[in-house]
Amino acid sequence: MSYSMVELITAKRDGEELEPDALRWIIAEYTADRIPDYQLSAFLMATIFRGMTQAELAPWTEAMLGSGDVLDLSYISKPKVDKHSTGGVGDKISIPLAPIAASCGLAVPMMSGRGLGHTGGTLDKLEAIPGFSSHVEPAAFASQLQDIGVVMIGATERLVPADQRIYALRDATGTVPSVPLISSSIMSKKLAEDLDGLLLDVKVGSGAFHRSYAEAVELASTMVGIGSAHNTPVTAILTNMEQPLGNAVGNANEIAESVLVLRGEGPPDVVALTRAFAIEMLRIAGETDASVAASRVDRAIDSGAAYDVFLKLVERQGGDVAAIEDLSRLPSSRQTHVMTASRDGFVARCDAYRVGVAAVRLGAGRATKADIIDPGVGFNILVTVGDEVVEGQPLVEIAFESESRLRRCLEILDNAFEISDDFVGPLDLILGEIR
Amino acid sequence: MSYSMVELITAKRDGEELEPDALRWIIAEYTADRIPDYQLSAFLMATIFRGMTQAELAPWTEAMLGSGDVLDLSYISKPKVDKHSTGGVGDKISIPLAPIAASCGLAVPMMSGRGLGHTGGTLDKLEAIPGFSSHVEPAAFASQLQDIGVVMIGATERLVPADQRIYALRDATGTVPSVPLISSSIMSKKLAEDLDGLLLDVKVGSGAFHRSYAEAVELASTMVGIGSAHNTPVTAILTNMEQPLGNAVGNANEIAESVLVLRGEGPPDVVALTRAFAIEMLRIAGETDASVAASRVDRAIDSGAAYDVFLKLVERQGGDVAAIEDLSRLPSSRQTHVMTASRDGFVARCDAYRVGVAAVRLGAGRATKADIIDPGVGFNILVTVGDEVVEGQPLVEIAFESESRLRRCLEILDNAFEISDDFVGPLDLILGEIR
Repeated sequence: MSYSMVELITAKRDGEELEPDALRWIIAEYTADRIPDYQLSAFLMATIFRGMTQAELAPWTEAMLGSGDVLDLSYISKPKVDKHSTGGVGDKISIPLAPIAASCGLAVPMMSGRGLGHTGGTLDKLEAIPGFSSHVEPAAFASQLQDIGVVMIGATERLVPADQRIYALRDATGTVPSVPLISSSIMSKKLAEDLDGLLLDVKVGSGAFHRSYAEAVELASTMVGIGSAHNTPVTAILTNMEQPLGNAVGNANEIAESVLVLRGEGPPDVVALTRAFAIEMLRIAGETDASVAASRVDRAIDSGAAYDVFLKLVERQGGDVAAIEDLSRLPSSRQTHVMTASRDGFVARCDAYRVGVAAVRLGAGRATKADIIDPGVGFNILVTVGDEVVEGQPLVEIAFESESRLRRCLEILDNAFEISDDFVGPLDLILGEIR
Repeated sequence: MSYSMVELITAKRDGEELEPDALRWIIAEYTADRIPDYQLSAFLMATIFRGMTQAELAPWTEAMLGSGDVLDLSYISKPKVDKHSTGGVGDKISIPLAPIAASCGLAVPMMSGRGLGHTGGTLDKLEAIPGFSSHVEPAAFASQLQDIGVVMIGATERLVPADQRIYALRDATGTVPSVPLISSSIMSKKLAEDLDGLLLDVKVGSGAFHRSYAEAVELASTMVGIGSAHNTPVTAILTNMEQPLGNAVGNANEIAESVLVLRGEGPPDVVALTRAFAIEMLRIAGETDASVAASRVDRAIDSGAAYDVFLKLVERQGGDVAAIEDLSRLPSSRQTHVMTASRDGFVARCDAYRVGVAAVRLGAGRATKADIIDPGVGFNILVTVGDEVVEGQPLVEIAFESESRLRRCLEILDNAFEISDDFVGPLDLILGEIR
């Protein structure tokens, strides 16, 4: 079947629904360099305005995921369930979650990304562990997944090349913020992992890609729909990203906080979200009794089994296990600055977006892809929305390397906190769920 | 001043008004190959949806017209007024109009285009005159314009190169139908002619680019606004293109009909429109008294002065004057087919779009840019909407060369005519005017 790309652009521009073969044709021809960038970018911009129906998105996403290698994990007898987050500040949940799920009998072939902009990335955090490699050869990948039930790596270049090329084009043409384009980008990569189920953490709020609940619901239900068309059960949990998750924002310190969760000592919000996600992953894998799932998760943590899986994961991927057993051996910074409350009152706001941008300025994240991350810098946030504070009370400990970076960081971090006379209740952690 | 193209695409996508310098920057950088096609096409598609304000269109159009050579006609003391049509079927008005205006004392440096799709092109018609050249060297252009007041040529490659490149990109990316993009394309080329005034014939109806009056008004007022920002008086006259203009649709036969107008023997609709346009061109040039303008136009025709100017124009541009003086020497076809009325009644419709497509199938126009035109084929349409006809009465004489082309032509021409029991009044020729 052959099409005219101009006619397909025109049809999308005019709001017509394209037939599945036409969408498959676009992906195949673009990947084969037979559709020029200037035609695809016009098509993508028309999609920004016209969207895609679920009937369009399913073949579009399938064509993307079929554009390169697709994992074949049929040799794994365990249920293969992964988790993906749309990105937040202080969001280290994947790091304790994956070993917990693995120690509960799931296989977690997790491919993660790096941080860009104000959000952190799982790979950057893991690479704060000395020696840890996010690149694992296919044979080692298979044996590690079979032996310990979890691998945490970056996407390979041969995985969904259509997405890599389309994403680069979107980045250069103002066509990133589109629910169907975001959904197909995420889902094509996740479905290429040959999963039995997927948990999506769709973040909402100042530090998330979506600030409005309605937009997050649209994204979540679109991705759940793509999973359904692929016969893969997907649950999307909408979670609060108004304030950072946990106390730690950075890289090495987020690894330390993740380890505390596995040792039963993590901060309450990170522990609660990790537990909820692990329980839902077990449900997706077939554990219909919620209380059984909960006790399996608790046992995995309390028995130290999940912690052991994490140690093995670090070891298999070249990381320094001693730095996990003794967290003081993780990278750290020479200097600490303490930011204090300017007045008495209640913490009304700890703006996740501003904290995220401040972390980038400190060196914990990337403003551009070329930036190099300093794993030891970061924040230890000592208060949460709803806490009562007095003037001079420490709000954040800042581990820093450079005075000039600290100054630029403080310019924005100062405005992240709001202290009010009126009591503001703690924020809900989980805002909704779509299956 | 330097900008980020991604940011400008994003701003346009989100409906913001761009500053004049940003729009100039886009044209300059794109023309200098420093903005890639894939970014401009995304910008153009965003413009399809978001449009451009008059405040954006003025610098955008100025930047386009400044992208290449701009004529300097300051050596011409006469008022320089041109006319442009958005394109129709049987629209040969420019051909008698330009010599009439010239013989009334105007200078008409007319650059025209070729036909594409169902509409004809002035250059194709003129080139039906044996030997006529639509290419004139700059020195000859200047002397001809000074000597006889009219030159009729194609646009040079150095005239508004930004438009030529942007138009090619629009053609390949589904971004043609946008009022601001069409307006800036037309107006940049016309304003590059260094005019004192411009008359726009904005056609409305089945055979026109715009079928709805409201859309045509939007295009007309946008172009008048661009002229105003350039301090060039522009009048847009909205005219009916539901049925073809005149009797002749083709190339050589449209030249013959144009010559009849100059001899005072043309069909009433072509004569009326030519007179109205000539009078308006004189008004634009400063003739405030409409009855004086009308009698100047009538005198130019009745005295034979306009006809003489046309003979000189043909001669100066290499054409065979004998073929104008004896119209039987123009190219013609060997065979004629007559299409007749299938029943008694009133002509209710003679669909200009279908007639135009039928003419292309016959060989009188181009379906693609590479097609070659046969100057001798065409239609002599013998009836007009409102005429009473009897069964078997000739409706159209078709001059053709190839039986197979004739068959394909008749498939669509048959459906162009509608004969009804009820009387249908003649169509209005002029539908509105915007200054």
